[in-house]
Amino acid sequence: MAQLRIALAQTNPTVGDLSANADRLVAWTRDAAERGAHLVVFTEMFLTGYPVEDLVLRTSFVDASIDTLEEVARRLEREGLGELPVVVGYVDRAGLAPRVGQPKGAPLDAAALLHRGEVVTRTAKHHLPNYGVFDEYRYFVRGDRLPIFRLHGVDVAIAVCEDLWQEGGPVSVVGQAGAGLLVAPNASPYEKEKDDVRLELCARRAREAGCALAYVNQIGGQDELVFDGDSIVVDAAGEPVARAGQFKEELLVVDLDGLPVADAGPGSYPYDAGDGSTITVERLILSSEPVAPYEPEPGRVAERLDPHAEVYSALVLAVRDYVAKNGFESVILGLSGGIDSALTATIAADAIGPSRVNVVLMPSRYSSDHSLADAEELVRRQGITARVAPIADIVSAFEKEIELSGLAAENLQARVRGMILMGLSNEHGHLVLTTGNKSELATGYSTLYGDSAGGFAPIKDVPKTMVWELSRWRNAHSGEGFLLPAEQPIPENSITKEPSAELRPDQRDTDSLPPYEVLDRLLDDYVEKDMGSQELIAAGHDPDLVTRVIRLVDVAEYKRRQYPPGPKITPKNFGRDRRLPITNRWRETTG
Amino acid sequence: MAQLRIALAQTNPTVGDLSANADRLVAWTRDAAERGAHLVVFTEMFLTGYPVEDLVLRTSFVDASIDTLEEVARRLEREGLGELPVVVGYVDRAGLAPRVGQPKGAPLDAAALLHRGEVVTRTAKHHLPNYGVFDEYRYFVRGDRLPIFRLHGVDVAIAVCEDLWQEGGPVSVVGQAGAGLLVAPNASPYEKEKDDVRLELCARRAREAGCALAYVNQIGGQDELVFDGDSIVVDAAGEPVARAGQFKEELLVVDLDGLPVADAGPGSYPYDAGDGSTITVERLILSSEPVAPYEPEPGRVAERLDPHAEVYSALVLAVRDYVAKNGFESVILGLSGGIDSALTATIAADAIGPSRVNVVLMPSRYSSDHSLADAEELVRRQGITARVAPIADIVSAFEKEIELSGLAAENLQARVRGMILMGLSNEHGHLVLTTGNKSELATGYSTLYGDSAGGFAPIKDVPKTMVWELSRWRNAHSGEGFLLPAEQPIPENSITKEPSAELRPDQRDTDSLPPYEVLDRLLDDYVEKDMGSQELIAAGHDPDLVTRVIRLVDVAEYKRRQYPPGPKITPKNFGRDRRLPITNRWRETTG
Repeated sequence: MAQLRIALAQTNPTVGDLSANADRLVAWTRDAAERGAHLVVFTEMFLTGYPVEDLVLRTSFVDASIDTLEEVARRLEREGLGELPVVVGYVDRAGLAPRVGQPKGAPLDAAALLHRGEVVTRTAKHHLPNYGVFDEYRYFVRGDRLPIFRLHGVDVAIAVCEDLWQEGGPVSVVGQAGAGLLVAPNASPYEKEKDDVRLELCARRAREAGCALAYVNQIGGQDELVFDGDSIVVDAAGEPVARAGQFKEELLVVDLDGLPVADAGPGSYPYDAGDGSTITVERLILSSEPVAPYEPEPGRVAERLDPHAEVYSALVLAVRDYVAKNGFESVILGLSGGIDSALTATIAADAIGPSRVNVVLMPSRYSSDHSLADAEELVRRQGITARVAPIADIVSAFEKEIELSGLAAENLQARVRGMILMGLSNEHGHLVLTTGNKSELATGYSTLYGDSAGGFAPIKDVPKTMVWELSRWRNAHSGEGFLLPAEQPIPENSITKEPSAELRPDQRDTDSLPPYEVLDRLLDDYVEKDMGSQELIAAGHDPDLVTRVIRLVDVAEYKRRQYPPGPKITPKNFGRDRRLPITNRWRETTG
Repeated sequence: MAQLRIALAQTNPTVGDLSANADRLVAWTRDAAERGAHLVVFTEMFLTGYPVEDLVLRTSFVDASIDTLEEVARRLEREGLGELPVVVGYVDRAGLAPRVGQPKGAPLDAAALLHRGEVVTRTAKHHLPNYGVFDEYRYFVRGDRLPIFRLHGVDVAIAVCEDLWQEGGPVSVVGQAGAGLLVAPNASPYEKEKDDVRLELCARRAREAGCALAYVNQIGGQDELVFDGDSIVVDAAGEPVARAGQFKEELLVVDLDGLPVADAGPGSYPYDAGDGSTITVERLILSSEPVAPYEPEPGRVAERLDPHAEVYSALVLAVRDYVAKNGFESVILGLSGGIDSALTATIAADAIGPSRVNVVLMPSRYSSDHSLADAEELVRRQGITARVAPIADIVSAFEKEIELSGLAAENLQARVRGMILMGLSNEHGHLVLTTGNKSELATGYSTLYGDSAGGFAPIKDVPKTMVWELSRWRNAHSGEGFLLPAEQPIPENSITKEPSAELRPDQRDTDSLPPYEVLDRLLDDYVEKDMGSQELIAAGHDPDLVTRVIRLVDVAEYKRRQYPPGPKITPKNFGRDRRLPITNRWRETTG
């Protein structure tokens, strides 16, 4: 039996910033070396960041990825870190002849083993996900090689991300070929309570592979995606050995004990992958002698965040990274006194600090007194920067040129506010945050180019009932990752008052929508669970409401396509992973 | 040797409108019967329309597709058309157990043979395209059956669309199994000059299959896609026998002569498809006796449109169908006196008639005298409905509340115009057309929520130099599909004057951009041909300009994502088929 100390680099790469990612690889490898690790594993496509989308179709980008990999291998050696093997994800190419339907350049979602200044072996993801937020048949060709390298007597296999999620393929081959440890670089986006699924999956795949499994995941926001980390090590029986925290960078160092010592020789061997394909196992030997026995440190299993802390942390991280990765210094948003903008401001202040958050109070002729008062109270509590810009005179100037009534007049007010925010954004360089929630977005209860105008939509995937829950939760908690020092940052009145768009006298959301508790349950069943109208009615939803809400959701498609990106916290967000043809004439309710 | 008269139904289905599409199937089949056809072939997914995107993941939608197919077979029989075999595309399901990575419900891009009130056989597309505008790994599982049915002694095979484009698969199997005719339902989107590629492809595949080939394609606009028809029949040597027109519905009736009489018995036989998969040929017999010899009519080969007529027709059809399929009665756009809005208005008037086109002239303090005059001249020539709404007072009202300078002040003017159009759209129900061209869109030379606000962008894929070409072409031509009676509908001054956004005194496009002839050539090489910076410089583009333009294009990604849909006329439009992560830090020029 042998021991290994492995280091899982749960990191936050930036898409396209190859040199910064390489610098970070060297720094984290140095840290791992100082902590006595025998192996460091970075995340999927760490050198390029993930996801890279169309960048991968550019020859020059793939060249840069490969060059960066080879250069960082040499640099590790130059900086005295060459003896510590590093597994890292990057983009490579398969060298296939072009053919119709194959992504240009035949790119690979690759991982390499670096050792003593060399790229010792390369592999690539076998199973390409093409559902939900993933479009990988568009971008990659599948890998068909499985490296198993001997490290201090232990055979270590490498499989990339999706290869754990689908049946057959590399995990099945590891089970046949035998290994002591399977390391898996991942870029697995956050979804609410996905951590439970992930642990169960790792345990199952470890048992299938018949060896310990080290799952390392990235963290950070990247456009619409948030990555939560939650890196996991399980033993061959599937029992958790160590687990990293959520939404934080962390070098998780884990002592593995009782690993089998291997003695198969080097060489290449084909295996039936159980999915209609053949995978070639490439065995190679770095070092055969087990490390001298040492006292292992117990594995750290980080506590899980509670459900509200988890979602709130995801939103904060998403905003922080969107601001930073896009090079903004500050944000701006409209503060109405209502709960959506109150929560959005709070998330922003927690993400980048209150001094970088700007709000504009834009009362209209229909704004109630409490709106301004509640907004001012939030400004006072949080210490963010506020200005007031009444919109009545601007609305009047429009009305002198064009006559608008009803919904058109309501939309005008929302658009004047959107233009004020965009004007200040263009003038001062702030990123505009929109404040719409998922219930509004789903039903189209928003104004195109009005409240939906902006660069990032922090709560676009948060249903209204959860907006209230998160607001109450945040008022009751503070967190180490949150930059806002205020206790109870959200005025109670913003949480408790009845929601209103205040675009006409005495307007209430319930004039147009069912109560949010009813609506959100129905939206969840329709959107997340994909239930049809008959199923929805059978599940107890009011038939008239089913018809009405399905129609709203299907028709709101155009507005949703125009909506800014925002962090995704559920499986069926709108946007990339759910879309209908705009000109579609079929309705779930008529099917 | 045998004869067959086949009818190719080059039709314009509407996505989701199952009953209207079924009605149309019956009507066209009656027409084919009256013209003595022995077989009618409809397009890919004709009953559902194409593309259906996420609708296909709904159980109820797939149920409706299958029910519609079976019902229309019975209805053909009831209406006395049951003897005429019909091949038609629809959506079916494969009945596979769910697994990770497989589209929900395992949908099939299917085609069926209807005869005597029954669905005689069903097949499905084998090669799933997942590049450019296609995302079919997301939506479908692959078919693995190839029906060959005997009709009047001739063996007829069915293959769907992409199965012609990729190597191996059904066409290869037809070559091995032998058939007298291969019929291929298609939904193949228009691209500039794609008709040449398509004819060559059909000829090559006919020779590979060793039989005549009938390629039937849909026409019509569907969101961003335009389908051009161009249905083709070639003989076994690949020689063209008949060819339908472009952008028009047409029942192309073709007499095929000298087809081989087959005698193989019915049954199922597996074949190696040459692409790593096995395809089962299912042979069945409708009728073995050749038709009594008759005098064949010579095949009609429709003349090709010239390149400008082709693009212009695509734009007109796209606008017409977007308006109709979305249920709009009229459109509205801002008319500046410049060429982009002049061409957009002309396209709209040609698409839906001048009486349904509304324009707003919105002069600012920076508008030149000729702008208003040129716009008024266009209104006079075309007889469209115009109103004037000066923006100066509205801009002043904004400026009283917020101080804006430079680009922020320019954007404000564009946004005020966008809001006026959206307000009138909301009040009167017009669809707002945006007037931005591809050169602007590519480089980000437009205002988010300003000139990019609207529902449909007719010239979003038309480079500026082509805007001028199309305008000159339209002034010199009239066409049978165009609803605008005016001669020379575009004022010459709008074509010849120097382009300017007129958002500040004496502004010219060349203040910010290189001359369009230079820019468009560079954009074509960078965007369409995917050349990297080194290649661009080697191709003779100015190195400084390469750096500047690539940066503009890559950074304009966010604006492009917010842009309304518009007809696609080139392979590399922006939107679905070209996208970068917004927070990407890699630049082609630094790679």
